[in-house]
Amino acid sequence: MNILVINAGSSSLKFQLFNMNDESVLAKGKVERIGMDSSLVCYEPAGKPEEQEVAEILEHTTAVRKVLQMLVHKRHGVLESIDEIDAVGHRVVHGGESFPSSVIVDEDVKREIRRLFDLAPLHNPAHMLGINAVEENLPQTPQVVVFDTAFHQSMPAASYLYPIPMVLYRKHKIRRYGFHGTSHAYVSDRAAKLLQKPLDQLKLITCHIGNGASCTAVWNGKSYDTSMGMTPLEGLMMGTRSGDIDPAIVPYAMGKEDLTLGEVNSMLNKHSGLIAISGISSDMREILEAMEAGDRGAKLAFDMYEYRLRKYIGAYAAAMNGVDAIVFTAGVGENSAALRGAVCGNLTFLGIEFDEAANLSRDRGERRITTEASRVQVLVIPTNEELVIARDTHELILARTNVV
Amino acid sequence: MNILVINAGSSSLKFQLFNMNDESVLAKGKVERIGMDSSLVCYEPAGKPEEQEVAEILEHTTAVRKVLQMLVHKRHGVLESIDEIDAVGHRVVHGGESFPSSVIVDEDVKREIRRLFDLAPLHNPAHMLGINAVEENLPQTPQVVVFDTAFHQSMPAASYLYPIPMVLYRKHKIRRYGFHGTSHAYVSDRAAKLLQKPLDQLKLITCHIGNGASCTAVWNGKSYDTSMGMTPLEGLMMGTRSGDIDPAIVPYAMGKEDLTLGEVNSMLNKHSGLIAISGISSDMREILEAMEAGDRGAKLAFDMYEYRLRKYIGAYAAAMNGVDAIVFTAGVGENSAALRGAVCGNLTFLGIEFDEAANLSRDRGERRITTEASRVQVLVIPTNEELVIARDTHELILARTNVV
Repeated sequence: MNILVINAGSSSLKFQLFNMNDESVLAKGKVERIGMDSSLVCYEPAGKPEEQEVAEILEHTTAVRKVLQMLVHKRHGVLESIDEIDAVGHRVVHGGESFPSSVIVDEDVKREIRRLFDLAPLHNPAHMLGINAVEENLPQTPQVVVFDTAFHQSMPAASYLYPIPMVLYRKHKIRRYGFHGTSHAYVSDRAAKLLQKPLDQLKLITCHIGNGASCTAVWNGKSYDTSMGMTPLEGLMMGTRSGDIDPAIVPYAMGKEDLTLGEVNSMLNKHSGLIAISGISSDMREILEAMEAGDRGAKLAFDMYEYRLRKYIGAYAAAMNGVDAIVFTAGVGENSAALRGAVCGNLTFLGIEFDEAANLSRDRGERRITTEASRVQVLVIPTNEELVIARDTHELILARTNVV
Repeated sequence: MNILVINAGSSSLKFQLFNMNDESVLAKGKVERIGMDSSLVCYEPAGKPEEQEVAEILEHTTAVRKVLQMLVHKRHGVLESIDEIDAVGHRVVHGGESFPSSVIVDEDVKREIRRLFDLAPLHNPAHMLGINAVEENLPQTPQVVVFDTAFHQSMPAASYLYPIPMVLYRKHKIRRYGFHGTSHAYVSDRAAKLLQKPLDQLKLITCHIGNGASCTAVWNGKSYDTSMGMTPLEGLMMGTRSGDIDPAIVPYAMGKEDLTLGEVNSMLNKHSGLIAISGISSDMREILEAMEAGDRGAKLAFDMYEYRLRKYIGAYAAAMNGVDAIVFTAGVGENSAALRGAVCGNLTFLGIEFDEAANLSRDRGERRITTEASRVQVLVIPTNEELVIARDTHELILARTNVV
């Protein structure tokens, strides 16, 4: 079974085509700058050279058509016909309280995703464009949606409610949803395999540290609490997002600087975090370079970033009354030995015995960076959200076929 | 030396008169409903019956005059003459970055407190009224101001800065200040004495849990981090305050409910916390009663309150890479065995061996509620902010006299 995984943004569309017999990637790529006059199409067929093309792609339907053309292209295609695509899986950021797991797309599902536009105004409308674009190009192919929020639907009320008037929850659904769920679920599963222990008997803290960053307390395989909240703004300090601040700062800054609701949102989401403190970059690699060159702003940005992550790890250890393993994943989590070293070096009270050689190793695979005797294990596990989307899609389609 | 301690609010004035020879309280009391036509004056002279009186007290100068009259009253007075008051110490909530310690009031100090009105619009103007009222009634008596923020001025930049555009710090002084400093300092000092260890070699987490609540990481005697922020809204869930929420909720709720800046502030400060979740009360005693009677809202409110406090304790243990003792103080912290039990019962991973009998004891004094073998000690220490204000005032006046 071949499954096409799509992650549609407002002006971009990323894709990967999986052969589920061996979970191999047949091709992947992306279309960028959709809606502008010179869109960029990147296409990487497995075992063949990468293709790049500039084209006029004004909306998502054309983008999907372009991707399908690439996949069956005579020279660099990987399929004979688009009929060989058995199903399409989409990443959808916000599933609200409606979707505790992945589902096959039908009219009800589409209506529900549209109803959630309000909670994820930047993401869900773009995903909907992707779903509709596939429907127009492949009307007979089943589609599945996989939600970033689904894994966190297991949180207890004491984790997901905010101590604010309950009418805001009842009327406007203001609560903690959490994001990056697909990644937290994937690395938890992998961590249990690496630790050779059943996932449902483990206390894990998974740190998905990329451009966006979130931390999850995974207790017996279920999300118990997570740092992102109603929106992906809450929690850890990120590349351009503030994470936690005194909520009173919002009205105070609005009053002082005469900001609109949109402007204060934009300030906290796009002009805060690493870039705001360092004045240099939202990219941890550039922060580390500047820090090594002696830049004090970069050092302060790194220290705050590390410190705020470390506090969340401590908080979640307290949430579960202990922790068996801490997992680092995503861009920064997988690649920044400096961050992992700083965090773990200051958590020896938990019983972490760090293995600095393993931490610094050039190995890019799954690995342990603590000694065998360490009371709490620390793991680095590359995430793979696309594979989870493909697997969920595969399972749901198989189950439906079996029922029929 | 006799020192009058004053805590002036916008419509109230609390006072305590100390004899600093033995730190005994000669009298204490309060004036409530200042500015309304029937103000209430309560007066408790040591060893004599309590007096209550309804009077028309339209502003703070009259309130202070009334207090002074009580103190030298023929029948229930405790002084022969108001000249026996050697100095007056005031509680001032916000000292900004200008006051890392208590100071004698002069024109510069008054100007600086006025400059800080913007950061504490509900508190500092009222304190200023109190200072001026004393000056009018006792023009020759030296006054000292003791700041709630002062103890926290030792925080490192990585604790006090927010990951938001630095211009907000430079231009508007938006940063973490922290509050309840006088209490956190006092109980830290007492904790060291109880533990019989030097304060500058201890990692303490002090939990001041009253109507307002905050948690502080006290590292080697200095505030290293604290849960309240630019304002007393941030951090723990409180009686009527939300504490931490996704900052994106603020503009979202403003948009959905068409709230002004003042209204959203009021919602988060006065209509959130325990009262919002339970729908019953902002008072922990009433929450516990309702909980015992089986009320589910009360149970949820308690669970959230406890959970959020516990996460801060974990976070601060991670901040200091360990903790030697946890201290509970203030109304709820000193009196709610249920809260302390729930928090500590879920922190056994830190090495806490709880002593439930000691926790439940009717003893109201300073006490340990862990076993002797417990790796982390937990203490209950009644706070005494008035005494700290009296001591600081005493010391500063003595030092000035010695210099002259």
